[in-house]
Amino acid sequence: MKHAHTIHQRHHGWDNSLAAVATVAPGDVLEFDVLDAAGGQLGPASVAEDLLRLDFAAINPVNGPVCVDGAEPGDALAVTVLSFAPSGWGWTANIPGFGLLADQFPQPALRLWQYDPVALGPAMFGRFGRVPLKPFTGTIGVAPAAPGAHSIVPPRRVGGNMDIRDIAVGTTLYLPVEVPGALFSVGDTHAAQGDGEVCGTAIESPMRVSLQFDVLKRERLEFPRFRTPGPVSRHLDGSGYDVTTGIGPDLMAGARAALAAMIDLLTRRHGMPAIDAYMLCSVCADLRISEIVDAPNWTVALYFPRLVLE
Amino acid sequence: MKHAHTIHQRHHGWDNSLAAVATVAPGDVLEFDVLDAAGGQLGPASVAEDLLRLDFAAINPVNGPVCVDGAEPGDALAVTVLSFAPSGWGWTANIPGFGLLADQFPQPALRLWQYDPVALGPAMFGRFGRVPLKPFTGTIGVAPAAPGAHSIVPPRRVGGNMDIRDIAVGTTLYLPVEVPGALFSVGDTHAAQGDGEVCGTAIESPMRVSLQFDVLKRERLEFPRFRTPGPVSRHLDGSGYDVTTGIGPDLMAGARAALAAMIDLLTRRHGMPAIDAYMLCSVCADLRISEIVDAPNWTVALYFPRLVLE
Repeated sequence: MKHAHTIHQRHHGWDNSLAAVATVAPGDVLEFDVLDAAGGQLGPASVAEDLLRLDFAAINPVNGPVCVDGAEPGDALAVTVLSFAPSGWGWTANIPGFGLLADQFPQPALRLWQYDPVALGPAMFGRFGRVPLKPFTGTIGVAPAAPGAHSIVPPRRVGGNMDIRDIAVGTTLYLPVEVPGALFSVGDTHAAQGDGEVCGTAIESPMRVSLQFDVLKRERLEFPRFRTPGPVSRHLDGSGYDVTTGIGPDLMAGARAALAAMIDLLTRRHGMPAIDAYMLCSVCADLRISEIVDAPNWTVALYFPRLVLE
Repeated sequence: MKHAHTIHQRHHGWDNSLAAVATVAPGDVLEFDVLDAAGGQLGPASVAEDLLRLDFAAINPVNGPVCVDGAEPGDALAVTVLSFAPSGWGWTANIPGFGLLADQFPQPALRLWQYDPVALGPAMFGRFGRVPLKPFTGTIGVAPAAPGAHSIVPPRRVGGNMDIRDIAVGTTLYLPVEVPGALFSVGDTHAAQGDGEVCGTAIESPMRVSLQFDVLKRERLEFPRFRTPGPVSRHLDGSGYDVTTGIGPDLMAGARAALAAMIDLLTRRHGMPAIDAYMLCSVCADLRISEIVDAPNWTVALYFPRLVLE
């Protein structure tokens, strides 16, 4: 596949008044030179205290926006993930105030990763585990119709920081278009993540990503949709799972209980500091809703892949 | 494996004053002759209107209770699922007032299933789909310490109607013991279900189930935990997934949006009545929490396995 163009330009919020940096036609391919979610503020020599000095205005840059010819409000922009060229370096952090158990983990923590960017074998998490990799784009979306600048942090109807682990090679994502030309941007590449991204960060890692664009007319999506070309968890599931649950009338409380129980289990069984168990869950364990109908109590489950610690 | 005993006795609520119908020692195996969740009130000749005549006091019988020697409050009861002998017959229903989209589907609906109880090949869902089977126990738990009768419908700390699809053959479940002897019961066998059980019922199907018991002393679980012996979704994942999302500040609203979008997609693409799409999602599609940290909006996703409709 020839790449017509590489997008290096970045911005830090969703805003439909931003000028497009490129225009493509349906069928075209673009490459994006994506920074990690810290926007280059962390590196292989960084330490936890550097997290306290992060400039949050520079967090989570996205590359774009790209105008897609013929995309109009009510259409769906189809984006197929063709390939990644990962950097081989990444980080996972507990950023104070951020994460599902932010109240229980107030101190900054930072773990750095090195991985083989070609073979993409499992990455070592200190002496504790081997985490299978599956690169994907954490933030991918189009400009909202609402005027002004919108934070890059929360995802919304038009996509953005959805952090969906399966927007990986081969997946086609369908995004609701709200403005003419769609104004597409992408960033926040991850080398691995569990469903939930529970500590707030994944294996944050700069990569080049190659994407192909198409337009589905009048698809009238309410929210993003995607299609995967095959299985989504086989890099994780070979040895089964240890699973903790949280049961009660609130899904958020259930998710927190399941995560707290998994951290407790990993800490007791493997002698792992709790903060490491928390971050390890974020990069490989999956939050599922087992049951959402047996009123008044729902079952949330956290699936930790056993091969990571074998 | 020889079975010492089959438990036929059933009850309809959790109550620690119920007398044990059998006592086992750690390591023992019991077989349970489990009815479907309607407690035998539905059969191969049933129609949707029969749902309006269900006696809800007889719903979801469980077999037991069984006293496990040496199990004390603070211990975990370990229950390993050894095997199922399915009946080959089942039902899926939309019961008015019950289910994630109960407000949108007020009419009763009933679909009946026949499947090969030995080969367990995919079961036909009318002309619309082939649903891979994986039997499991929907309701499995122990008596709570709180006195009196507690409804069988909601799950709770001591387990019960958790409807966790992966409490299948080979899985070991750990339940928090709250009363001496644990007072274990099991029921509500399902031939297949997606994570979420979104319409409120699975493939409800009578089966015999064989379980082995053990006790972990002083495990002090907050909620149930389990371990699977291997992959959990390979019966579903071979052709990938179509995935819809719901994004916003409320996980329940996100789950409802993702489900509504999937029903819309299946209806448009396959000409399927919406009620059938709803029930089909309940027996094979998985609710996942993709992201629960990018405040204030979370991403909930519903994964529909494409092989079901190929």
